[in-house]
Amino acid sequence: MTNQVFVKMALDAWHSKIKEADSIFNSLTDEQLKNEVASGRNTGIYLLGHLTVTHDLMLPILNFGQQIYQQLTGPYNDNPDAKTYIETASELRQYWKNINSILAENFSKMPAHAWFEKHNSVSAEAFQKELHRNKLNIIISRTNHLSYHNGQIVFLKK
Amino acid sequence: MTNQVFVKMALDAWHSKIKEADSIFNSLTDEQLKNEVASGRNTGIYLLGHLTVTHDLMLPILNFGQQIYQQLTGPYNDNPDAKTYIETASELRQYWKNINSILAENFSKMPAHAWFEKHNSVSAEAFQKELHRNKLNIIISRTNHLSYHNGQIVFLKK
Repeated sequence: MTNQVFVKMALDAWHSKIKEADSIFNSLTDEQLKNEVASGRNTGIYLLGHLTVTHDLMLPILNFGQQIYQQLTGPYNDNPDAKTYIETASELRQYWKNINSILAENFSKMPAHAWFEKHNSVSAEAFQKELHRNKLNIIISRTNHLSYHNGQIVFLKK
Repeated sequence: MTNQVFVKMALDAWHSKIKEADSIFNSLTDEQLKNEVASGRNTGIYLLGHLTVTHDLMLPILNFGQQIYQQLTGPYNDNPDAKTYIETASELRQYWKNINSILAENFSKMPAHAWFEKHNSVSAEAFQKELHRNKLNIIISRTNHLSYHNGQIVFLKK
């Protein structure tokens, strides 16, 4: 029972921030996404790609499967300065929608107790001492990451 | 046991984002705080005041006591367009530090089970049906709020 309440709290926050991001992205044209969120800062299209990579990488961390859009990791995460973007805004919008749907589907199938198992970026030894490094903690962390960037992409709105 | 793990997850995220905000604010001069975070958007000093009000209002919501800096609610939350700011950056920095210390002290005294009690912005009737509207949920929500604005104030750094 209590486990279920925890899981609902963390997942509600996740879905709320996904909805906020979708609302912002959907209000922007592809042209607007090419703009910098602030002078000299990342563009909307970069941040859309960056958020997509971050969420895509949750698949292996949470044991849901392999990363789908591996080609995005370099330009939108590891090496942004290279600016080797080849995806269009339209493609990235589709990837973003797809990866969040896959996550939501996997989330809905997880029994509450499974969220408190270790994720794949922590060793079994470390997890024994640090039980908070579980799958649900990844959700809390990535929700905050999304909030951080939502605070930036909102600046693209007129 | 599980309660303690979940409380640690939520509070660790809170403290981590407070640390991030402090690191950004401490790296900025009072002059830099007067700048807009992006063209035509809020200034750093407004956001410092806004975050201070938001955290100050957590005192009554979490049953820790009364709001301390009531004079900030109008200019930094309810009616920002009036731009009736009278506080200096130095004063706001002090209020911000103080309110977060008071919160941290109260957090450290809370037994894990108490985090799952209802907060003061939800009725007893509503809470019976929605047990996730507890005190810890306020932490999760306010941590995301802080992350959102951290993503903005970071733009004041050169």
